[in-house]
Amino acid sequence: MAEEKRTEINDLGEFGLIKRISEKFTNQNPSTVFGIGDDAAVMDCGDEYKLVSTDMLLEGVHFDLSYAPLTHLGFKAVAVNVSDIAAMNGIPEQITVSIGISNRFSLQAVEALYEGVKFACEAYKVDLVGGDTTSSQAGLVISVTAVGRVAKDKITYRNGASNSDILCVTGDLGGAFIGLQVLEREKQVFLENPGMQPELEKYDYLVKRQLKADARMDIVHELADFDVKPTAMIDISDGLASESFHLCEQSRLGVAIYEDKLPIAKATYDTAVEFNIDPITCALNGGEDYELLFTIKQDDFEKIKNHPDIATIGYMHEETKGRKFITKNENMIDLKAQGWKHF
Amino acid sequence: MAEEKRTEINDLGEFGLIKRISEKFTNQNPSTVFGIGDDAAVMDCGDEYKLVSTDMLLEGVHFDLSYAPLTHLGFKAVAVNVSDIAAMNGIPEQITVSIGISNRFSLQAVEALYEGVKFACEAYKVDLVGGDTTSSQAGLVISVTAVGRVAKDKITYRNGASNSDILCVTGDLGGAFIGLQVLEREKQVFLENPGMQPELEKYDYLVKRQLKADARMDIVHELADFDVKPTAMIDISDGLASESFHLCEQSRLGVAIYEDKLPIAKATYDTAVEFNIDPITCALNGGEDYELLFTIKQDDFEKIKNHPDIATIGYMHEETKGRKFITKNENMIDLKAQGWKHF
Repeated sequence: MAEEKRTEINDLGEFGLIKRISEKFTNQNPSTVFGIGDDAAVMDCGDEYKLVSTDMLLEGVHFDLSYAPLTHLGFKAVAVNVSDIAAMNGIPEQITVSIGISNRFSLQAVEALYEGVKFACEAYKVDLVGGDTTSSQAGLVISVTAVGRVAKDKITYRNGASNSDILCVTGDLGGAFIGLQVLEREKQVFLENPGMQPELEKYDYLVKRQLKADARMDIVHELADFDVKPTAMIDISDGLASESFHLCEQSRLGVAIYEDKLPIAKATYDTAVEFNIDPITCALNGGEDYELLFTIKQDDFEKIKNHPDIATIGYMHEETKGRKFITKNENMIDLKAQGWKHF
Repeated sequence: MAEEKRTEINDLGEFGLIKRISEKFTNQNPSTVFGIGDDAAVMDCGDEYKLVSTDMLLEGVHFDLSYAPLTHLGFKAVAVNVSDIAAMNGIPEQITVSIGISNRFSLQAVEALYEGVKFACEAYKVDLVGGDTTSSQAGLVISVTAVGRVAKDKITYRNGASNSDILCVTGDLGGAFIGLQVLEREKQVFLENPGMQPELEKYDYLVKRQLKADARMDIVHELADFDVKPTAMIDISDGLASESFHLCEQSRLGVAIYEDKLPIAKATYDTAVEFNIDPITCALNGGEDYELLFTIKQDDFEKIKNHPDIATIGYMHEETKGRKFITKNENMIDLKAQGWKHF
């Protein structure tokens, strides 16, 4: 008998693992319109599509209860799934929330978590329709599934961009990543001097970006109002560079992103400098901003160019032209992605 | 300031916790037909309903990797969700599978898990359309969501039973519980004498009942073929008694179950006796059988009475008549439920 080989998951990475697994599955139901490989799965539902997205948050991997309040965490667990529905140009309508909790949690702690879920249900107009509650011998586990809907002619996949489409991003970038650095530093200070109060006022915006993730449903509604249908869309959970690569790969195009167009908040910039981190690296590779990255036809540029919360940061070009970053001094260099590795 | 009170989740139990949480939520989307409180949530989808169910399995709580093979586990994680769709008289079509794994797992281990998922996808004709893979600092976590469909006039809720409806159950009961006892005993023997091989052949059926949970989609299809629409239905994950109480509560009825009608396999009976456990207690309170418990109109009795895998075990009566168990010697005693407590 041949010896069994052991391959480490680390060597494959999350995307490699998903690819390896999903290759072995084929869809057989006519109602399955699109499966693995976009922000949400797409199912036929008469006149429209249903969308399903799911995300799991694990203590010690995705959050640290020493600084993430349970209410914020409940909100965030819903928001990251709503963000996936938004990235399909869809409207979220239902969620299920499953939690695994150890008995170190009191009822009050669980209620604080669900208070955040409730705030999110109100903010995004979604209904909590099910879930599972169980004990966990290890840390806190939260698994949320969101169900949404979208008109068949309004759905946006990652693969719909065309050559010379304009690349747009909402909000500002890198804030959630810098917020995490601030929280980690304050945690260390606290562990060394438990009597000290953390100084977070100054970093208020950044801490909020990390702890109070918001899904850009406002943009989905506004684009509809402006009669702009993005040609391709994705949400930014792993960083702008990595997500733009998904659009490139699936649309079989290259991309050019301008350094001087990247939307970076002053607080992000200043604090990055304070931490000796390049603000541009934060904007390109910092994860968890949950902004929307999308492409539009050039004809639609006039409709969105004055929107205060949408930045046009580049354009799509032929695949052979590569994935490029144009620096302030007009050098064109290769765009590098270093997504968040959870393995 | 008043002192904060700490309430233990143990004191509430899982159903108490779900009730307490769900009371604070109200549904606002017209597409939400039914939320928390049945085997699956129900959403409007044009001519039919979509069903959504979710379950989370945690290592050390729901399974023990020292005897649960990963392939079986992958199958079971899907089957328990398919069983929830079956309990609504629905057809499952899509699943999402999220896993949290520590790096003690090799790629081969993850592939073994997904091999089980694939077997289940083939057995139940469902498509794997999404999920999430992440590292876990603690044990293995598997969270599955199933999406199904059902014609609007074919859906079965827990609350649809009427006075004098006949109570039916599929398959046989208590086997999964006794199978677990066998596995736990063999594990102890192995821990004390690591050189010994476990003797499981004799308990083959019971071990399969525990490790290879099967959802009764065959019965859903057969009832449709017989033109029998159950008036109420639920799947048995927590034990016959506990599940019959859900039918009673939601249909506002009482129930009478006959001891001598309970379907118990010979292997279950004999092994229960070997373990000094009352076989009837196993049948009433042993969990994880994933059989279907349902009520039918008396007029439908003729259609199913010769079905080899459906037992008619009792009937529904007025709520004031209570929840009764009729022993072999015709004593009518109160039926007691002791569900599986995960807290």
